[in-house]
Amino acid sequence: MPNETTFRRTPKIHLQALLNELFKGDKISLGRAITIVESKHPEEKKIASQLIDQILPHSGKSFKIGITGVPGVGKSTFIESFGKKLTSIGKRVAVLSIDPSSTKTKGSILGDKTRMPELSNDPNAFIRPTAAGKSLGGVSSNTREAIMLCEAAGFEIILIETVGVGQSETMVKDMVDYFLLLMLAGSGDELQGIKRGIMELADHVLINKADGNMLDSAKNAKEDFKSALHLFPSNPSGWVVPVGLCSAINKTGIEEAWETINQFQKQMKASGWLEANRKDQAIQWFHERINNHLIDDFYSDHEKQNEIKEKEEMISSQRISVRKAIDELFRNRS
Amino acid sequence: MPNETTFRRTPKIHLQALLNELFKGDKISLGRAITIVESKHPEEKKIASQLIDQILPHSGKSFKIGITGVPGVGKSTFIESFGKKLTSIGKRVAVLSIDPSSTKTKGSILGDKTRMPELSNDPNAFIRPTAAGKSLGGVSSNTREAIMLCEAAGFEIILIETVGVGQSETMVKDMVDYFLLLMLAGSGDELQGIKRGIMELADHVLINKADGNMLDSAKNAKEDFKSALHLFPSNPSGWVVPVGLCSAINKTGIEEAWETINQFQKQMKASGWLEANRKDQAIQWFHERINNHLIDDFYSDHEKQNEIKEKEEMISSQRISVRKAIDELFRNRS
Repeated sequence: MPNETTFRRTPKIHLQALLNELFKGDKISLGRAITIVESKHPEEKKIASQLIDQILPHSGKSFKIGITGVPGVGKSTFIESFGKKLTSIGKRVAVLSIDPSSTKTKGSILGDKTRMPELSNDPNAFIRPTAAGKSLGGVSSNTREAIMLCEAAGFEIILIETVGVGQSETMVKDMVDYFLLLMLAGSGDELQGIKRGIMELADHVLINKADGNMLDSAKNAKEDFKSALHLFPSNPSGWVVPVGLCSAINKTGIEEAWETINQFQKQMKASGWLEANRKDQAIQWFHERINNHLIDDFYSDHEKQNEIKEKEEMISSQRISVRKAIDELFRNRS
Repeated sequence: MPNETTFRRTPKIHLQALLNELFKGDKISLGRAITIVESKHPEEKKIASQLIDQILPHSGKSFKIGITGVPGVGKSTFIESFGKKLTSIGKRVAVLSIDPSSTKTKGSILGDKTRMPELSNDPNAFIRPTAAGKSLGGVSSNTREAIMLCEAAGFEIILIETVGVGQSETMVKDMVDYFLLLMLAGSGDELQGIKRGIMELADHVLINKADGNMLDSAKNAKEDFKSALHLFPSNPSGWVVPVGLCSAINKTGIEEAWETINQFQKQMKASGWLEANRKDQAIQWFHERINNHLIDDFYSDHEKQNEIKEKEEMISSQRISVRKAIDELFRNRS
C-alpha cells in the first residue's frame, strides 16, 4: 500500500461535468478519468466506482488490438504509421502503452511526443501510458478500465502496446480482440528477447523493417514463419494466422495489415467468436480480481512477508518441506 | 470439501514401520505413503506431515522427465519401451500418471497393467496414477509429494505422464527437469488437440510411430520441426531442443532419446541450471500453494459461490462492472 502522503492533492471532482466532457470525446477529461480509476486513494476510489457505473453502458464498443514485439522492432514507428492510417480514414484511435518493468510515470507523455510525434498531435488520437510500477494485476485492471473510458469517449480502435519480454503479453492477450506480433527478419538474436509461448498467441505476425537491404531476407522470413506456424496448433477462433511484411517507416504494408484485421473482425463477428471471447475475458477478469484481492490482502501484512521470505530460504535449502511451510504459515488462521 | 463419510476406514498407521519399508524401496509401502499424502482426512494429514518431514532429506535426488502428447500418440507404449530400457540398464523407474480430466481412480491400476504390461510387472518399476477429480492445485501438490516419496524409495528416474490437452502440461513443466513432447508425423488433425504454447515448452520433440509406411513422412516432419523450432525463441536453459524419431512399438529411437536426455542432464548439471531451476520450482510451488490456500478458503463458502455465479451473469450481460462486483463481493470483509 502506498503511503497516504504520496497521494497528490486532489481537487474536488465534479463527476457529472467530467462525464459530459468525456462523452463529448474530450481528451483532457478522458485523461483525468483514467487517473481517477487508477487511483488507490479511498475518496477517488468512490468516485471511480460511480464513474465506471455511468460509463458501463457506453463501453464494449471498440475493437481492441494488442501490439507486441521486442525493443528495437519498431513498435513506436509502427503505431505512428498505423494510427495515422486509421485516423486518415476517420477512425478515432486510442493508444494505451504498458511497460510493467518501468517504474517511471513522469515524463512518459513527453516520451510519447517524441516516439509518435504525428499521432500525439492528431486530434483524433489519444495516447496514454499506463501508470507503471504497480503489480501486474493492478496494471491489468487499470488498463481494462482505461479501455472502457476510451470507449465511452468514442474511441473506436484501441491499441494496447506492450514490450514483448515479460508477462504482460498474456495479460494483454486476455483483454484484446486481436493480438499482433511485430517481428524482424532473421531468426537469431532478436528472438532471444521474445518470451517462449508468445509466438503461438499471435493472431497476426508482421515482419517490420521489410525495406531496402532487408527486403529479401524479410520475404524469406515470411515464408519460413508461414510454414512454421502451419506446424503449430491452430488458432482457437479458427482464424488462419497471417504472416505479413511491412515497413513502418516507409508506410508500406500498413494498409494491407489493416485490411487483414478488418477481415478478422468481420469473420469473428459473423461466427460469434468475438462476442463469446469478450464474455469469457470479462469473467476471467472478474476471477483474476478476486484472486488478486485475496493475495494482495494476505501479502499486505508486513510480518507475513518476512515469514514468507524466511520460509523461501528454508525451502531452497531443503530444510523445510513446502507442506510444513504452508501449515506453519496458516496455523493462526482458521 | 469431500464429505467425511466418503473417507475409507483407515487402519492405524505405524509411521516408523512404513518409513523403514519405504527406504528399502518397498513398492507397497510407497503406494501406501502416497495415499496418505493425498488424503484430506485431518488425522492422515498429521501423519502425512510427519512422513514428509522424515523423507525430506532423502528427496530431490531423481531426474524427473515430463512426458506429454495427445491421446493416440502412443504415450503408454513409449513409456513401456522407455521404462524397460531404463530398468534394463539398472535404473529404478517410477511412472506417475496425471489426468485431471478423469474423475475415475478405481480401475486405474488394472488399466496400467493393460497399458504397460511389461513395466507394471518389472520389480524395478513403480506405476501410479494420481488420484484425479481434484483441483489442479491439489493434483500439483500431490504429484510433487509423490515424487518426493518415490525419491525416498530409491527411484532414480521419475516419468510424469500427462495428456497434452489441458492445463496440466504447464503444471508438469513446472515440476520436472526435462519436458518431452511426443508427436506424430503430419501437421494436420493431430495438432488440433495440443494446446497452444505447449510446443514451445518442450525440451525434446520426439516423433513416434516412425516406422513402416510412416517412416518417410516422419523423417520429413522431423526436418520441418527442426527448422520451425529454429524460428521460435530459444530454451531458457541454453539447450538446443532436439527433434528425434522413434517407434515405441518397435523399440527404435528409444536408446537415442535416452542418450540425448543424459547429455542434457550432464550439460545442465555442469552449468548449474538444473540446481537453479529446481530451487525456482520449489519456491514457485510454495507460492502456488499459498495462493491456492487463499482461493480455496474463499470459494469454500457456499453462499459466496452463489454470489459469484450471479455476478458472473451480470458481468456477462454488462449489467454490472467488474469493479462494482468486486466491491460488493468483499464489502463484508475488511
